[in-house]
Amino acid sequence: MSILVVGSVALDTVLTPLEEKIDLLGGSATYFAAAASYFAPVRIVGAVGEDFQMNQLEFLKERSVDLGGLQIRSGRTFRWTGRYGDDPNDRETIDLQYGVFAGFSPLLPDDYGASEYIFLANINPELQLRVLQQITAPKLIMADTIDHWIERRRGVLLEVLKGVHAVTLNDTEAKKLAGEDNLIRASKAILKMGPEIVIIKKGEHGALMVTGDSLFALPACPVENVCDPTGAGDSFAGGFMGYLHRTGDLTEESLRKAVACGTVMASFVVERFSVDGIRSLSQEDIERRLREFKGITWFEEVDPWG
Amino acid sequence: MSILVVGSVALDTVLTPLEEKIDLLGGSATYFAAAASYFAPVRIVGAVGEDFQMNQLEFLKERSVDLGGLQIRSGRTFRWTGRYGDDPNDRETIDLQYGVFAGFSPLLPDDYGASEYIFLANINPELQLRVLQQITAPKLIMADTIDHWIERRRGVLLEVLKGVHAVTLNDTEAKKLAGEDNLIRASKAILKMGPEIVIIKKGEHGALMVTGDSLFALPACPVENVCDPTGAGDSFAGGFMGYLHRTGDLTEESLRKAVACGTVMASFVVERFSVDGIRSLSQEDIERRLREFKGITWFEEVDPWG
Repeated sequence: MSILVVGSVALDTVLTPLEEKIDLLGGSATYFAAAASYFAPVRIVGAVGEDFQMNQLEFLKERSVDLGGLQIRSGRTFRWTGRYGDDPNDRETIDLQYGVFAGFSPLLPDDYGASEYIFLANINPELQLRVLQQITAPKLIMADTIDHWIERRRGVLLEVLKGVHAVTLNDTEAKKLAGEDNLIRASKAILKMGPEIVIIKKGEHGALMVTGDSLFALPACPVENVCDPTGAGDSFAGGFMGYLHRTGDLTEESLRKAVACGTVMASFVVERFSVDGIRSLSQEDIERRLREFKGITWFEEVDPWG
Repeated sequence: MSILVVGSVALDTVLTPLEEKIDLLGGSATYFAAAASYFAPVRIVGAVGEDFQMNQLEFLKERSVDLGGLQIRSGRTFRWTGRYGDDPNDRETIDLQYGVFAGFSPLLPDDYGASEYIFLANINPELQLRVLQQITAPKLIMADTIDHWIERRRGVLLEVLKGVHAVTLNDTEAKKLAGEDNLIRASKAILKMGPEIVIIKKGEHGALMVTGDSLFALPACPVENVCDPTGAGDSFAGGFMGYLHRTGDLTEESLRKAVACGTVMASFVVERFSVDGIRSLSQEDIERRLREFKGITWFEEVDPWG
């Protein structure tokens, strides 16, 4: 059975301190699917406009990504324009054009409702809720969200959080959602809203996973040349859920390995523009970086007075 | 043989979003010694004014900290006033009064020059250089510095860096010193300035240790209630060098454990004002937190296709 992702397939304009790129392939569902598809089959539900060149997604099809749920609607594709500062964690959204996504309703095709692993990428929580209502046999539902919805659709978002197993957000979003300045306290407050797993993405500072009885903190996989941070969070989610789907193991030990997989997939993404960093990796590429990452973070039990 | 620290013993005024505290015991040498003294004997070289109440350092004496090199000079004790924002990484220096530290020259008492482990805390690099010239049998010399000296005393600072084994600075300082936006590239550039070990402190985001052939990244030890971040970096250095002195082992494996010790000592410090968080710990307190920290960061080898 495939992982279901509901989110955007978009065209991004990205301004970095060094370069400007127009109409790059982007979107949360695209990044998620590209990363997850190394580990498991994926189904995308989303919408693009008539201006979208479908052959851009050919590489996903070749890796068993099912695009049957991707609606082609009359109008323009969702477009995002963002600018990064010298600090890659410093991002500003300059322009947002919902296009065909404005009228999009995620009606799941036959069988999709029976998906066991579901990622509700960052979209209007009303749409996330509509997807939740069509899910019949979930093992792991994870939702993402952003400031915009936390501020403007808090009520519906809280409904969504009641219905998911895991939520992933960045540090400022987590603090805003919880009304707490400290990330541990914020995570614990979010656990009380429904999810059993809270994953805080801190960009180049790594990730934090908090469950009812455990804390897991991991640095990012160090990248010497960050080209374009767009899609890091969704690729993280793709690596995370891809690994879990592949192993079918939702124990703490497995969840931690999944965070490492997500971290490594995100590190590939930021090295190139768009999805280029994860367009055509080999299993060996991913395995090698997982080993490097383990080497970078590893230390022995410390017993100063032993 | 003791660890030698040359740095300030100061009186700090600390403004946090919740509280304001005046004339707290502070200073880089104080924090370093308080943390390191759990692992090894320590000697402080520094200066205080006649207004300083020496009984404030009684707790250090009781833990074998030698204050023979602490000069009591006529005039006022070094004073620092700083304000923290809601984000504890966000610190602003409001006032700085060098007092007796302005005319201070670090002349080492007999025997001190033969110290093997030396920490040159953040002071004018001219004074750091003067200490270096008196050291006769070093095994590990580590220096700290800040923006102020990087901007104003770059030449002398570069001399200091040529003479030390290790340097520790925070992320913005490392970027400024190296003229690089990326921390890995910055660390590699700093290695070329002389030190064999570069440790980047990222506050609540952990630490990065870079050597000629290895990278080590560690998150911070999560703290739910950060009271006062002052002294976290010097306590980190104290835990780091204290562990290394205790074991006498400077292998990569040992350096990594030392980073973990530093991380844990820093986590105790930020929970209380001044040195209160590390004033009277037991070995069991430190061992327990080291175990917790290991538990928080631990994950197994990941082999998705194994």
